[in-house]
Amino acid sequence: MTDTATPSAPRTTADEVSRGMTDLEQIKRLKSRYFRYVDTKQWDEFRSLFTDDAEVDTSEAIVDPHGFWDGGRLPVVTPDAMTTALKARMTGVFTCHHGHDPEITFHSEDRASGVWAMEDIVRRPAGSELASFHGWGYYHEEYRKVDGEWRFTRVRVARLHVKQIDHFPAKD
Amino acid sequence: MTDTATPSAPRTTADEVSRGMTDLEQIKRLKSRYFRYVDTKQWDEFRSLFTDDAEVDTSEAIVDPHGFWDGGRLPVVTPDAMTTALKARMTGVFTCHHGHDPEITFHSEDRASGVWAMEDIVRRPAGSELASFHGWGYYHEEYRKVDGEWRFTRVRVARLHVKQIDHFPAKD
Amino acid sequence: MTDTATPSAPRTTADEVSRGMTDLEQIKRLKSRYFRYVDTKQWDEFRSLFTDDAEVDTSEAIVDPHGFWDGGRLPVVTPDAMTTALKARMTGVFTCHHGHDPEITFHSEDRASGVWAMEDIVRRPAGSELASFHGWGYYHEEYRKVDGEWRFTRVRVARLHVKQIDHFPAKD
Repeated sequence: MTDTATPSAPRTTADEVSRGMTDLEQIKRLKSRYFRYVDTKQWDEFRSLFTDDAEVDTSEAIVDPHGFWDGGRLPVVTPDAMTTALKARMTGVFTCHHGHDPEITFHSEDRASGVWAMEDIVRRPAGSELASFHGWGYYHEEYRKVDGEWRFTRVRVARLHVKQIDHFPAKD
Repeated sequence: MTDTATPSAPRTTADEVSRGMTDLEQIKRLKSRYFRYVDTKQWDEFRSLFTDDAEVDTSEAIVDPHGFWDGGRLPVVTPDAMTTALKARMTGVFTCHHGHDPEITFHSEDRASGVWAMEDIVRRPAGSELASFHGWGYYHEEYRKVDGEWRFTRVRVARLHVKQIDHFPAKD
Repeated sequence: MTDTATPSAPRTTADEVSRGMTDLEQIKRLKSRYFRYVDTKQWDEFRSLFTDDAEVDTSEAIVDPHGFWDGGRLPVVTPDAMTTALKARMTGVFTCHHGHDPEITFHSEDRASGVWAMEDIVRRPAGSELASFHGWGYYHEEYRKVDGEWRFTRVRVARLHVKQIDHFPAKD
Protein backbone atom coordinates (compact mmCIF):
# COMPACT_ATOMS: atom_id res chain seq x y z
CA MET A 1 0.00 0.00 0.00
CA THR A 2 1.62 3.24 -1.08
CA ASP A 3 -0.95 5.59 0.30
CA THR A 4 -4.45 5.76 1.66
CA ALA A 5 -7.02 5.70 -1.09
CA THR A 6 -9.75 8.27 -0.77
CA PRO A 7 -12.87 6.22 -0.05
CA SER A 8 -14.92 7.92 -2.72
CA ALA A 9 -17.26 5.02 -3.41
CA PRO A 10 -17.39 2.88 -0.28
CA ARG A 11 -19.78 -0.05 -0.25
CA THR A 12 -20.36 -2.01 2.91
CA THR A 13 -19.58 -5.71 2.72
CA ALA A 14 -20.81 -8.44 5.02
CA ASP A 15 -17.35 -8.50 6.54
CA GLU A 16 -17.58 -4.83 7.33
CA VAL A 17 -20.87 -5.27 9.14
CA SER A 18 -19.37 -7.95 11.35
CA ARG A 19 -16.54 -5.59 12.14
CA GLY A 20 -18.88 -2.88 13.31
CA MET A 21 -20.10 -1.22 10.13
CA THR A 22 -23.72 -1.30 11.25
CA ASP A 23 -26.56 0.83 9.93
CA LEU A 24 -25.70 3.34 12.60
CA GLU A 25 -22.10 3.54 11.43
CA GLN A 26 -23.16 3.78 7.82
CA ILE A 27 -25.25 6.82 8.66
CA LYS A 28 -22.31 8.36 10.51
CA ARG A 29 -20.11 7.72 7.51
CA LEU A 30 -22.70 9.31 5.22
CA LYS A 31 -22.37 12.47 7.29
CA SER A 32 -18.57 12.25 7.30
CA ARG A 33 -18.61 12.18 3.51
CA TYR A 34 -21.06 15.09 3.39
CA PHE A 35 -18.58 17.25 5.28
CA ARG A 36 -15.49 16.04 3.43
CA TYR A 37 -17.05 16.47 -0.01
CA VAL A 38 -18.04 20.06 0.80
CA ASP A 39 -14.67 21.01 2.22
CA THR A 40 -12.67 19.32 -0.55
CA LYS A 41 -15.15 20.58 -3.17
CA GLN A 42 -16.10 17.25 -4.67
CA TRP A 43 -19.50 18.34 -5.91
CA ASP A 44 -20.69 15.31 -7.87
CA GLU A 45 -19.85 13.11 -4.91
CA PHE A 46 -21.66 15.54 -2.61
CA ARG A 47 -24.80 15.40 -4.74
CA SER A 48 -24.76 11.59 -4.73
CA LEU A 49 -25.37 11.50 -0.98
CA PHE A 50 -28.96 12.71 -1.36
CA THR A 51 -32.08 11.08 -2.74
CA ASP A 52 -33.51 12.95 -5.71
CA ASP A 53 -36.54 14.06 -3.69
CA ALA A 54 -34.51 15.29 -0.73
CA GLU A 55 -34.96 18.72 0.84
CA VAL A 56 -32.17 21.01 2.02
CA ASP A 57 -33.41 23.65 4.43
CA THR A 58 -30.89 26.40 5.17
CA SER A 59 -33.46 29.02 6.13
CA GLU A 60 -32.01 29.24 9.64
CA ALA A 61 -28.45 28.57 8.56
CA ILE A 62 -26.93 32.02 8.85
CA VAL A 63 -29.33 33.84 11.13
CA ASP A 64 -28.02 34.27 14.64
CA PRO A 65 -30.85 33.86 17.17
CA HIS A 66 -29.01 36.31 19.43
CA GLY A 67 -29.70 38.98 16.83
CA PHE A 68 -26.15 39.93 15.92
CA TRP A 69 -26.01 38.38 12.50
CA ASP A 70 -28.52 38.03 9.72
CA GLY A 71 -26.99 36.49 6.64
CA GLY A 72 -30.37 36.21 5.01
CA ARG A 73 -32.88 33.41 4.94
CA LEU A 74 -32.44 30.96 2.11
CA PRO A 75 -35.29 28.93 0.65
CA VAL A 76 -35.68 25.16 1.02
CA VAL A 77 -34.02 23.72 -2.06
CA THR A 78 -33.37 20.48 -3.89
CA PRO A 79 -30.01 18.71 -3.69
CA ASP A 80 -29.33 19.79 -7.28
CA ALA A 81 -29.92 23.44 -6.43
CA MET A 82 -27.88 23.15 -3.23
CA THR A 83 -24.96 21.58 -5.07
CA THR A 84 -25.05 24.25 -7.77
CA ALA A 85 -25.21 27.04 -5.19
CA LEU A 86 -22.31 25.67 -3.15
CA LYS A 87 -20.20 25.14 -6.25
CA ALA A 88 -20.77 28.77 -7.29
CA ARG A 89 -20.13 30.27 -3.86
CA MET A 90 -17.28 28.17 -2.54
CA THR A 91 -14.64 28.31 -5.26
CA GLY A 92 -11.40 29.66 -3.78
CA VAL A 93 -12.95 29.76 -0.33
CA PHE A 94 -11.64 27.85 2.66
CA THR A 95 -14.46 26.00 4.36
CA CYS A 96 -14.37 23.67 7.30
CA HIS A 97 -17.47 21.78 8.46
CA HIS A 98 -17.25 19.37 11.37
CA GLY A 99 -20.04 17.28 12.87
CA HIS A 100 -20.08 16.19 16.49
CA ASP A 101 -21.98 14.12 19.02
CA PRO A 102 -24.69 12.59 16.80
CA GLU A 103 -28.01 11.28 18.08
CA ILE A 104 -29.44 8.85 15.54
CA THR A 105 -32.92 7.31 15.91
CA PHE A 106 -34.25 4.49 13.74
CA HIS A 107 -37.92 4.62 12.76
CA SER A 108 -38.07 1.53 10.54
CA GLU A 109 -35.83 -0.75 8.52
CA ASP A 110 -35.03 1.98 6.06
CA ARG A 111 -35.85 5.25 7.84
CA ALA A 112 -33.88 7.11 10.46
CA SER A 113 -33.42 10.65 11.73
CA GLY A 114 -30.58 12.38 13.46
CA VAL A 115 -29.30 15.46 15.22
CA TRP A 116 -25.66 16.50 14.89
CA ALA A 117 -23.86 19.32 16.62
CA MET A 118 -21.75 21.30 14.16
CA GLU A 119 -19.08 23.94 13.84
CA ASP A 120 -18.13 25.54 10.56
CA ILE A 121 -15.82 28.17 9.17
CA VAL A 122 -16.17 29.96 5.84
CA ARG A 123 -13.16 32.16 5.09
CA ARG A 124 -13.08 34.09 1.83
CA PRO A 125 -10.29 35.84 -0.04
CA ALA A 126 -9.50 39.51 0.60
CA GLY A 127 -11.93 41.76 -1.22
CA SER A 128 -14.83 39.35 -1.30
CA GLU A 129 -18.19 41.07 -0.92
CA LEU A 130 -19.58 38.12 1.00
CA ALA A 131 -18.73 37.78 4.66
CA SER A 132 -16.34 35.32 6.24
CA PHE A 133 -17.79 33.71 9.33
CA HIS A 134 -17.52 31.11 12.03
CA GLY A 135 -20.69 29.32 13.09
CA TRP A 136 -22.03 26.84 15.63
CA GLY A 137 -25.31 24.97 15.69
CA TYR A 138 -27.12 21.77 14.73
CA TYR A 139 -28.08 19.68 11.77
CA HIS A 140 -31.52 18.03 11.94
CA GLU A 141 -31.69 15.28 9.37
CA GLU A 142 -33.68 12.42 7.89
CA TYR A 143 -32.26 9.38 6.14
CA ARG A 144 -33.59 6.63 3.89
CA LYS A 145 -31.90 3.37 2.93
CA VAL A 146 -32.08 2.98 -0.84
CA ASP A 147 -30.60 -0.09 -2.56
CA GLY A 148 -28.67 -0.93 0.58
CA GLU A 149 -27.19 2.50 1.05
CA TRP A 150 -28.24 5.29 3.41
CA ARG A 151 -28.87 8.70 1.87
CA PHE A 152 -30.12 12.06 3.04
CA THR A 153 -33.80 12.81 2.44
CA ARG A 154 -33.79 16.01 4.47
CA VAL A 155 -31.07 18.24 5.90
CA ARG A 156 -31.90 21.28 7.99
CA VAL A 157 -29.20 23.38 9.56
CA ALA A 158 -29.91 25.84 12.36
CA ARG A 159 -27.07 27.76 13.90
CA LEU A 160 -26.98 28.95 17.50
CA HIS A 161 -24.37 31.60 16.88
CA VAL A 162 -22.49 33.19 14.00
CA LYS A 163 -19.41 35.37 14.34
CA GLN A 164 -17.87 37.40 11.55
CA ILE A 165 -14.17 36.72 10.96
CA ASP A 166 -11.48 38.30 8.78
CA HIS A 167 -11.10 37.42 5.13
CA PHE A 168 -7.83 35.87 4.05
CA PRO A 169 -5.16 38.54 3.99
CA ALA A 170 -4.42 40.02 0.57
CA LYS A 171 -1.51 38.60 -1.33
CA ASP A 172 1.00 41.24 -2.42
CA MET B 1 -42.36 13.47 7.89
CA THR B 2 -42.46 17.21 8.16
CA ASP B 3 -39.44 17.66 10.33
CA THR B 4 -37.00 15.86 12.55
CA ALA B 5 -38.37 15.28 16.01
CA THR B 6 -36.04 16.24 18.81
CA PRO B 7 -35.11 12.94 20.44
CA SER B 8 -35.85 14.18 23.92
CA ALA B 9 -36.72 10.81 25.43
CA PRO B 10 -35.05 8.14 23.33
CA ARG B 11 -35.37 4.55 24.49
CA THR B 12 -33.36 1.83 22.85
CA THR B 13 -35.38 -0.95 21.27
CA ALA B 14 -34.18 -4.43 20.39
CA ASP B 15 -34.18 -3.34 16.78
CA GLU B 16 -31.91 -0.45 17.58
CA VAL B 17 -29.38 -2.73 19.26
CA SER B 18 -29.24 -4.94 16.18
CA ARG B 19 -28.60 -1.84 14.12
CA GLY B 20 -25.64 -0.81 16.20
CA MET B 21 -27.14 0.87 19.26
CA THR B 22 -24.89 -1.05 21.65
CA ASP B 23 -24.06 -0.13 25.22
CA LEU B 24 -21.11 1.78 23.85
CA GLU B 25 -23.31 3.81 21.55
CA GLN B 26 -25.83 4.43 24.30
CA ILE B 27 -23.09 5.95 26.41
CA LYS B 28 -21.99 8.11 23.51
CA ARG B 29 -25.56 9.23 23.02
CA LEU B 30 -25.84 10.04 26.73
CA LYS B 31 -22.92 12.42 26.29
CA SER B 32 -24.40 13.89 23.11
CA ARG B 33 -27.56 14.73 25.01
CA TYR B 34 -25.55 16.22 27.89
CA PHE B 35 -23.99 18.72 25.49
CA ARG B 36 -27.17 19.45 23.54
CA TYR B 37 -29.27 19.99 26.66
CA VAL B 38 -26.74 22.46 28.06
CA ASP B 39 -26.39 24.42 24.84
CA THR B 40 -30.12 24.50 24.12
CA LYS B 41 -30.87 25.16 27.81
CA GLN B 42 -33.17 22.21 28.43
CA TRP B 43 -32.49 21.97 32.14
CA ASP B 44 -34.95 19.30 33.26
CA GLU B 45 -33.71 17.03 30.50
CA PHE B 46 -30.14 17.80 31.51
CA ARG B 47 -30.81 16.82 35.12
CA SER B 48 -32.40 13.54 34.03
CA LEU B 49 -29.10 12.28 32.62
CA PHE B 50 -27.59 11.85 36.09
CA THR B 51 -28.27 9.42 38.90
CA ASP B 52 -29.45 11.15 42.08
CA ASP B 53 -26.19 10.28 43.85
CA ALA B 54 -23.96 11.53 41.03
CA GLU B 55 -21.06 13.92 41.57
CA VAL B 56 -20.14 16.82 39.31
CA ASP B 57 -16.58 17.98 39.85
CA THR B 58 -15.74 21.28 38.17
CA SER B 59 -12.91 22.19 40.52
CA GLU B 60 -10.43 22.16 37.62
CA ALA B 61 -12.91 23.40 35.05
CA ILE B 62 -11.78 26.97 34.61
CA VAL B 63 -8.25 26.96 35.94
CA ASP B 64 -5.61 27.03 33.24
CA PRO B 65 -2.66 24.82 34.18
CA HIS B 66 -0.44 27.20 32.21
CA GLY B 67 -1.24 29.84 34.81
CA PHE B 68 -2.89 32.45 32.61
CA TRP B 69 -6.43 32.00 33.78
CA ASP B 70 -7.98 31.28 37.13
CA GLY B 71 -11.75 31.37 37.00
CA GLY B 72 -11.96 30.03 40.52
CA ARG B 73 -12.25 26.52 41.87
CA LEU B 74 -15.78 25.29 42.25
CA PRO B 75 -16.80 22.63 44.75
CA VAL B 76 -17.94 19.13 43.85
CA VAL B 77 -21.72 19.35 43.62
CA THR B 78 -24.83 17.28 43.12
CA PRO B 79 -26.64 17.16 39.78
CA ASP B 80 -29.43 19.26 41.31
CA ALA B 81 -26.98 21.96 42.36
CA MET B 82 -25.18 21.83 39.01
CA THR B 83 -28.43 22.19 37.09
CA THR B 84 -29.54 25.11 39.24
CA ALA B 85 -26.18 26.84 38.85
CA LEU B 86 -26.12 26.42 35.08
CA LYS B 87 -29.69 27.64 34.74
CA ALA B 88 -28.84 30.79 36.71
CA ARG B 89 -25.59 31.52 34.89
CA MET B 90 -26.40 30.64 31.31
CA THR B 91 -29.57 32.57 30.54
CA GLY B 92 -28.96 34.79 27.52
CA VAL B 93 -25.49 33.37 27.10
CA PHE B 94 -24.27 31.57 23.99
CA THR B 95 -22.61 28.32 24.96
CA CYS B 96 -21.16 25.62 22.78
CA HIS B 97 -19.85 22.35 24.23
CA HIS B 98 -18.51 19.65 21.92
CA GLY B 99 -17.12 16.26 22.91
CA HIS B 100 -14.55 14.42 20.83
CA ASP B 101 -12.62 11.17 20.56
CA PRO B 102 -14.10 9.21 23.47
CA GLU B 103 -12.38 6.32 25.21
CA ILE B 104 -14.98 4.20 26.98
CA THR B 105 -14.04 1.26 29.23
CA PHE B 106 -16.55 -1.24 30.63
CA HIS B 107 -15.97 -2.48 34.17
CA SER B 108 -19.03 -4.70 34.55
CA GLU B 109 -22.49 -5.20 33.11
CA ASP B 110 -23.68 -1.89 34.45
CA ARG B 111 -20.55 0.14 35.10
CA ALA B 112 -18.31 1.99 32.69
CA SER B 113 -15.95 4.94 32.64
CA GLY B 114 -14.80 7.25 29.92
CA VAL B 115 -12.55 10.06 28.84
CA TRP B 116 -13.71 12.64 26.29
CA ALA B 117 -11.75 15.44 24.73
CA MET B 118 -13.74 18.66 24.77
CA GLU B 119 -13.88 22.20 23.45
CA ASP B 120 -16.28 24.80 24.74
CA ILE B 121 -17.19 28.43 24.26
CA VAL B 122 -19.07 30.65 26.70
CA ARG B 123 -19.88 34.03 25.21
CA ARG B 124 -21.81 36.54 27.29
CA PRO B 125 -23.65 39.74 26.40
CA ALA B 126 -21.88 43.09 26.44
CA GLY B 127 -21.58 44.44 29.98
CA SER B 128 -21.58 41.08 31.73
CA GLU B 129 -19.33 41.02 34.78
CA LEU B 130 -18.45 37.39 34.16
CA ALA B 131 -15.86 36.58 31.54
CA SER B 132 -16.44 35.11 28.11
CA PHE B 133 -14.02 32.34 27.32
CA HIS B 134 -12.96 29.53 25.03
CA GLY B 135 -11.66 26.34 26.63
CA TRP B 136 -10.11 22.98 25.77
CA GLY B 137 -9.64 19.92 27.94
CA TYR B 138 -11.11 16.60 29.03
CA TYR B 139 -14.10 15.09 30.72
CA HIS B 140 -13.38 12.12 33.00
CA GLU B 141 -16.60 10.28 33.69
CA GLU B 142 -18.30 7.28 35.26
CA TYR B 143 -21.55 5.70 34.13
CA ARG B 144 -24.07 3.29 35.61
CA LYS B 145 -26.85 1.45 33.81
CA VAL B 146 -30.09 1.92 35.74
CA ASP B 147 -33.33 0.36 34.54
CA GLY B 148 -31.79 -0.31 31.16
CA GLU B 149 -30.51 3.21 30.64
CA TRP B 150 -27.00 4.58 31.09
CA ARG B 151 -26.61 7.64 33.32
CA PHE B 152 -23.78 9.71 34.67
CA THR B 153 -22.62 8.91 38.19
CA ARG B 154 -19.60 11.19 38.05
CA VAL B 155 -18.48 13.96 35.71
CA ARG B 156 -15.17 15.72 36.18
CA VAL B 157 -13.97 18.35 33.75
CA ALA B 158 -10.36 19.47 33.62
CA ARG B 159 -9.31 22.00 31.03
CA LEU B 160 -5.85 22.20 29.50
CA HIS B 161 -6.22 25.78 28.39
CA VAL B 162 -8.63 28.68 28.71
CA LYS B 163 -8.57 31.83 26.62
CA GLN B 164 -10.60 34.95 27.29
CA ILE B 165 -12.72 36.12 24.35
CA ASP B 166 -14.87 39.17 23.66
CA HIS B 167 -18.40 39.48 24.91
CA PHE B 168 -21.15 39.82 22.36
CA PRO B 169 -21.08 43.32 20.92
CA ALA B 170 -23.56 45.74 22.44
CA LYS B 171 -26.85 46.23 20.65
CA ASP B 172 -27.63 49.88 19.91
CA MET C 1 -14.62 4.22 42.59
CA THR C 2 -12.86 7.38 43.60
CA ASP C 3 -11.98 8.62 40.17
CA THR C 4 -11.71 7.60 36.55
CA ALA C 5 -8.54 5.70 35.81
CA THR C 6 -6.69 6.89 32.75
CA PRO C 7 -7.06 4.05 30.27
CA SER C 8 -3.35 3.91 29.49
CA ALA C 9 -3.22 0.25 28.53
CA PRO C 10 -6.70 -0.80 27.44
CA ARG C 11 -7.12 -4.33 26.18
CA THR C 12 -10.37 -5.42 24.59
CA THR C 13 -12.13 -8.32 26.26
CA ALA C 14 -14.79 -10.57 24.77
CA ASP C 15 -17.30 -8.74 26.91
CA GLU C 16 -16.27 -5.44 25.43
CA VAL C 17 -16.77 -6.72 21.89
CA SER C 18 -20.30 -7.82 22.70
CA ARG C 19 -20.95 -4.35 24.06
CA GLY C 20 -19.87 -2.67 20.86
CA MET C 21 -16.08 -2.61 21.03
CA THR C 22 -15.72 -3.87 17.47
CA ASP C 23 -12.67 -3.57 15.26
CA LEU C 24 -14.10 -0.30 14.03
CA GLU C 25 -14.37 1.06 17.56
CA GLN C 26 -10.90 -0.17 18.43
CA ILE C 27 -9.50 1.83 15.53
CA LYS C 28 -11.41 4.88 16.68
CA ARG C 29 -10.04 4.43 20.15
CA LEU C 30 -6.52 4.09 18.75
CA LYS C 31 -6.95 7.54 17.22
CA SER C 32 -8.45 8.93 20.43
CA ARG C 33 -5.35 7.82 22.30
CA TYR C 34 -3.08 9.29 19.62
CA PHE C 35 -4.60 12.71 20.23
CA ARG C 36 -4.74 12.44 24.01
CA TYR C 37 -1.15 11.22 24.32
CA VAL C 38 0.11 14.14 22.23
CA ASP C 39 -1.87 16.76 24.09
CA THR C 40 -1.06 15.38 27.53
CA LYS C 41 2.56 14.71 26.49
CA GLN C 42 2.68 11.01 27.24
CA TRP C 43 5.42 10.18 24.78
CA ASP C 44 6.13 6.53 25.50
CA GLU C 45 2.43 5.79 25.25
CA PHE C 46 2.27 7.77 22.02
CA ARG C 47 5.12 5.76 20.50
CA SER C 48 3.42 2.48 21.44
CA LEU C 49 0.51 3.18 19.10
CA PHE C 50 2.66 2.60 16.00
CA THR C 51 4.24 -0.48 14.50
CA ASP C 52 8.01 -0.27 14.34
CA ASP C 53 7.93 -0.02 10.54
CA ALA C 54 5.31 2.72 10.45
CA GLU C 55 5.70 5.93 8.46
CA VAL C 56 4.70 9.39 9.63
CA ASP C 57 4.34 11.83 6.76
CA THR C 58 4.00 15.45 7.82
CA SER C 59 5.30 16.92 4.57
CA GLU C 60 1.98 18.67 3.98
CA ALA C 61 1.26 19.28 7.63
CA ILE C 62 1.98 22.98 7.93
CA VAL C 63 1.78 24.19 4.35
CA ASP C 64 -1.41 26.05 3.56
CA PRO C 65 -2.63 25.21 0.05
CA HIS C 66 -4.08 28.73 -0.13
CA GLY C 67 -0.54 30.03 -0.06
CA PHE C 68 -0.66 32.10 3.13
CA TRP C 69 1.43 29.87 5.31
CA ASP C 70 4.48 27.76 4.72
CA GLY C 71 5.78 26.23 7.89
CA GLY C 72 8.25 24.12 5.96
CA ARG C 73 7.99 20.63 4.57
CA LEU C 74 9.08 17.92 6.95
CA PRO C 75 10.43 14.57 5.80
CA VAL C 76 8.63 11.26 6.21
CA VAL C 77 9.92 9.85 9.47
CA THR C 78 9.76 6.81 11.72
CA PRO C 79 7.59 6.75 14.84
CA ASP C 80 10.76 6.96 16.93
CA ALA C 81 11.88 10.12 15.14
CA MET C 82 8.38 11.60 15.30
CA THR C 83 8.14 10.96 19.02
CA THR C 84 11.55 12.49 19.66
CA ALA C 85 10.72 15.55 17.57
CA LEU C 86 7.37 16.13 19.29
CA LYS C 87 8.92 15.71 22.72
CA ALA C 88 11.57 18.32 21.91
CA ARG C 89 9.17 20.83 20.35
CA MET C 90 6.12 20.57 22.55
CA THR C 91 7.44 21.03 26.08
CA GLY C 92 5.63 23.95 27.70
CA VAL C 93 3.41 24.34 24.67
CA PHE C 94 -0.37 24.07 24.73
CA THR C 95 -1.53 21.74 21.99
CA CYS C 96 -5.00 20.58 21.15
CA HIS C 97 -5.64 17.97 18.45
CA HIS C 98 -9.17 16.77 17.77
CA GLY C 99 -10.28 14.20 15.20
CA HIS C 100 -13.73 14.23 13.63
CA ASP C 101 -16.01 12.35 11.29
CA PRO C 102 -13.87 9.29 10.51
CA GLU C 103 -14.25 7.11 7.44
CA ILE C 104 -12.72 3.71 8.11
CA THR C 105 -12.41 1.02 5.41
CA PHE C 106 -11.39 -2.57 6.08
CA HIS C 107 -9.18 -4.25 3.48
CA SER C 108 -8.65 -7.61 5.21
CA GLU C 109 -8.81 -9.20 8.64
CA ASP C 110 -5.88 -7.18 9.85
CA ARG C 111 -5.62 -4.20 7.50
CA ALA C 112 -7.68 -1.03 7.38
CA SER C 113 -7.34 2.55 6.27
CA GLY C 114 -9.06 5.73 7.34
CA VAL C 115 -9.61 9.41 6.78
CA TRP C 116 -10.22 11.75 9.72
CA ALA C 117 -11.07 15.41 9.66
CA MET C 118 -8.97 17.33 12.16
CA GLU C 119 -8.53 20.64 13.91
CA ASP C 120 -5.49 21.52 15.93
CA ILE C 121 -4.04 24.38 17.92
CA VAL C 122 -0.40 24.87 18.86
CA ARG C 123 0.09 27.83 21.20
CA ARG C 124 3.57 28.64 22.43
CA PRO C 125 4.83 30.81 25.27
CA ALA C 126 5.62 34.49 24.71
CA GLY C 127 9.00 34.92 23.07
CA SER C 128 9.07 31.60 21.27
CA GLU C 129 10.74 31.78 17.87
CA LEU C 130 8.40 29.18 16.47
CA ALA C 131 4.93 30.25 15.42
CA SER C 132 1.68 29.55 17.22
CA PHE C 133 -1.03 28.41 14.86
CA HIS C 134 -4.49 27.00 14.37
CA GLY C 135 -4.98 24.42 11.63
CA TRP C 136 -7.66 22.39 9.86
CA GLY C 137 -7.30 19.43 7.54
CA TYR C 138 -7.25 15.65 7.30
CA TYR C 139 -5.37 12.62 8.49
CA HIS C 140 -4.98 9.82 5.95
CA GLU C 141 -4.01 6.65 7.75
CA GLU C 142 -3.34 2.93 7.53
CA TYR C 143 -3.74 0.41 10.32
CA ARG C 144 -2.59 -3.15 11.01
CA LYS C 145 -3.85 -5.52 13.69
CA VAL C 146 -0.87 -6.98 15.52
CA ASP C 147 -1.33 -9.48 18.37
CA GLY C 148 -4.99 -8.54 18.60
CA GLU C 149 -4.43 -4.82 18.76
CA TRP C 150 -4.75 -2.21 16.03
CA ARG C 151 -1.77 0.07 15.44
CA PHE C 152 -0.81 2.77 13.00
CA THR C 153 1.35 1.73 10.06
CA ARG C 154 1.11 5.06 8.28
CA VAL C 155 -0.10 8.52 9.29
CA ARG C 156 -0.18 11.37 6.82
CA VAL C 157 -1.54 14.76 7.78
CA ALA C 158 -2.51 17.35 5.17
CA ARG C 159 -3.97 20.61 6.28
CA LEU C 160 -6.45 22.68 4.29
CA HIS C 161 -5.74 25.89 6.12
CA VAL C 162 -3.38 27.26 8.72
CA LYS C 163 -3.81 30.52 10.60
CA GLN C 164 -1.20 32.17 12.78
CA ILE C 165 -2.38 32.98 16.31
CA ASP C 166 -0.88 34.85 19.27
CA HIS C 167 1.57 33.25 21.62
CA PHE C 168 0.59 32.97 25.25
CA PRO C 169 0.83 36.38 26.87
CA ALA C 170 4.01 37.02 28.84
CA LYS C 171 3.91 36.49 32.57
CA ASP C 172 5.06 39.51 34.55
